[in-house]
Amino acid sequence: MSDAYLVGAGQSDYGAFPEESYRSLFRTAFESALESVPKGLEKSAIDEAFVGTLGVGGRQLGLSGPAVTEHVGLEGVPCTRVENACAASGFSVRSAVQAVKSGMADVVLASGFEVMSDMSSDATKYWLGVSGETEWERLSGTTFSGVYAQMASVHMERYGTTREQLSRVAVKNHSNGAKNPHAQLGFECSLEDAMEAPVVADPLNLYHCCPTSDGAACALIVSEDVVSEYTDEPIRVAGVGAGSDSVGLFEREEYTRVPASERAADAAYQTAGVGPDDLDFAEVHDCFAIAELLAYEDLGFCERGEAGSLVEAGTTELGGELPVNTSGGLKSKGHPIGATGAGQVVEAYKQLTGTAGERQVEGATRGLTHNVGGSGGAAVVHIFEKEGESGVQA
Amino acid sequence: MSDAYLVGAGQSDYGAFPEESYRSLFRTAFESALESVPKGLEKSAIDEAFVGTLGVGGRQLGLSGPAVTEHVGLEGVPCTRVENACAASGFSVRSAVQAVKSGMADVVLASGFEVMSDMSSDATKYWLGVSGETEWERLSGTTFSGVYAQMASVHMERYGTTREQLSRVAVKNHSNGAKNPHAQLGFECSLEDAMEAPVVADPLNLYHCCPTSDGAACALIVSEDVVSEYTDEPIRVAGVGAGSDSVGLFEREEYTRVPASERAADAAYQTAGVGPDDLDFAEVHDCFAIAELLAYEDLGFCERGEAGSLVEAGTTELGGELPVNTSGGLKSKGHPIGATGAGQVVEAYKQLTGTAGERQVEGATRGLTHNVGGSGGAAVVHIFEKEGESGVQA
Repeated sequence: MSDAYLVGAGQSDYGAFPEESYRSLFRTAFESALESVPKGLEKSAIDEAFVGTLGVGGRQLGLSGPAVTEHVGLEGVPCTRVENACAASGFSVRSAVQAVKSGMADVVLASGFEVMSDMSSDATKYWLGVSGETEWERLSGTTFSGVYAQMASVHMERYGTTREQLSRVAVKNHSNGAKNPHAQLGFECSLEDAMEAPVVADPLNLYHCCPTSDGAACALIVSEDVVSEYTDEPIRVAGVGAGSDSVGLFEREEYTRVPASERAADAAYQTAGVGPDDLDFAEVHDCFAIAELLAYEDLGFCERGEAGSLVEAGTTELGGELPVNTSGGLKSKGHPIGATGAGQVVEAYKQLTGTAGERQVEGATRGLTHNVGGSGGAAVVHIFEKEGESGVQA
Repeated sequence: MSDAYLVGAGQSDYGAFPEESYRSLFRTAFESALESVPKGLEKSAIDEAFVGTLGVGGRQLGLSGPAVTEHVGLEGVPCTRVENACAASGFSVRSAVQAVKSGMADVVLASGFEVMSDMSSDATKYWLGVSGETEWERLSGTTFSGVYAQMASVHMERYGTTREQLSRVAVKNHSNGAKNPHAQLGFECSLEDAMEAPVVADPLNLYHCCPTSDGAACALIVSEDVVSEYTDEPIRVAGVGAGSDSVGLFEREEYTRVPASERAADAAYQTAGVGPDDLDFAEVHDCFAIAELLAYEDLGFCERGEAGSLVEAGTTELGGELPVNTSGGLKSKGHPIGATGAGQVVEAYKQLTGTAGERQVEGATRGLTHNVGGSGGAAVVHIFEKEGESGVQA
């Protein structure tokens, strides 16, 4: 079994781009990924591709993988679309790692895209809703903000988590996103702004919810056999983990944990031989502020019920002990559904190559990405580390 | 790199089942696959799952993988939905093989499903159309029968292929399907019937087109390390190949070949170390009669332009030199889009375990499956062989 390495990653801006298409955004991300490879990488070297997209609106819904890979000149290359709702491209990274480790491919594109800004409000509600449970959630009128509001309510009641703590997630992520030129909402917000925004689904207000976004992201995963052709400072995919769960929140035993995330994290830590204390940074799935707090607990950054205190203490700020969502996260950077997981890997790549600019975590050698589909029907975690930094607990 | 083995496969009936759901059909296929494993296989042994579906109609569109795996009690198991239009579950088999060969999983479920019979005619046209090219095909009114009719027209003009030869594909596949208890259209048809059916898209008539279908299929792929726990007569996944192409037919240089199929076949033959002459049977993607003829040529069963003669000579009939679509194929067995590729593997498993009943190919030791997405935007080929039968040309 060959190790897998991350040798490049890039993304388009996230935002609303009426003048772009899903294909042009994908091309931007693809070219940016190629350009990021230290020793260069010709697209002719790519021998397999995975494309994550939920596939929303009136564009190419079937065969949407080949539709973008042909556009960037990868015609002929085996291409598989993967879809696990908002975790589509996190799972495309997993598939790319499996393809490389299988020996069936040496250079694999893991990618994702989504275009959402050209849909009406009703269409958006429909196309986002399709990732919720159909019979008892979507068709009975439950939205994703409603589902996460239920999770937030129970967490607040059970653990004393406060609206201020939820708001501090937004303040932190906007502060980071303001340092990321690709961010959709790249501006700072005050605690007052985040506390006093209009209610979306009580207790969640506008600043506790991510935007809808257009965007694309690409990562390049290669085998041990060829990694030295592309970089002298390899970044290894040290940890891999994924899990699933019931699609409907109402089917789960508890509302204050995401078992799929716990399973994914356990497997990733085990394969990497490290634990949460060994991480220098993490990109977690903060589609709603409560989702980031649940992630702290599911990923073992703190004890169950302590996530509110963790963000309040500044531990997960840039400069804190474990910076989380240095990119701005889904909240400020944006959440073009199918692009999000691969986009998290873009941030990991920037941090580990020291190219994260103003939001650089000094001396970062190991980071985690965490991508969730739906309200937790699927989750995937990866741990990336600079070669030579492994074996902390091994 | 571990070899991958097929140790079980099963399917639901294909047809129109208003009393069933996508989940109940999936359960039937899943249980049938488990029961088919010679030495038994507990579902708790499954450590990864891939689910292929185009996702049509008003049911679970996002997270449709976890939606079915949770229903059969695989909650928690990493599950990825893959979609490459009509090749969705052929690619789920490819992903399962990669997962096993990667060393990240030992027992992997490769599967697919679709429910189409509860859609209106307009909805069916829409949901099938989404796998065609969007801007210049679907939105301009082109249907799949229209696309394949164009391919048939050019093949007839260029090579002298006749309506009778197209009809002989239907006669052969119905003859086989009449021997398959799972077939949707499990009745024989005469050459006259097949010649004189109403036109769908000239030159293709009703008997040159597959039906719309409900159904599900599952296959179990395991690693070399564990195969002996499940069978004493291993079937190896000897050949793997996949390719992509432009999604729109109009973008291709020629209408009389499917380059994605050629690429997939080349790779599969190369990895297996065998050629078309070494096959005992093949399941090919006959969504339309012309598609089966193109497959003969793309997969190297005959020279370019000779496919009409090949079917006319009886070479691909049961009892012929290379029986094709012993299951009845998409034409007679049915074509529940996401289930089709995995369903082809079910037939390969039956043939290689000597359990194909009246349609058994005597002494079958090696067979090929070929699954196409759209009009050839993606294609995937696998070669399965009974252990100890390899190395014919190696």
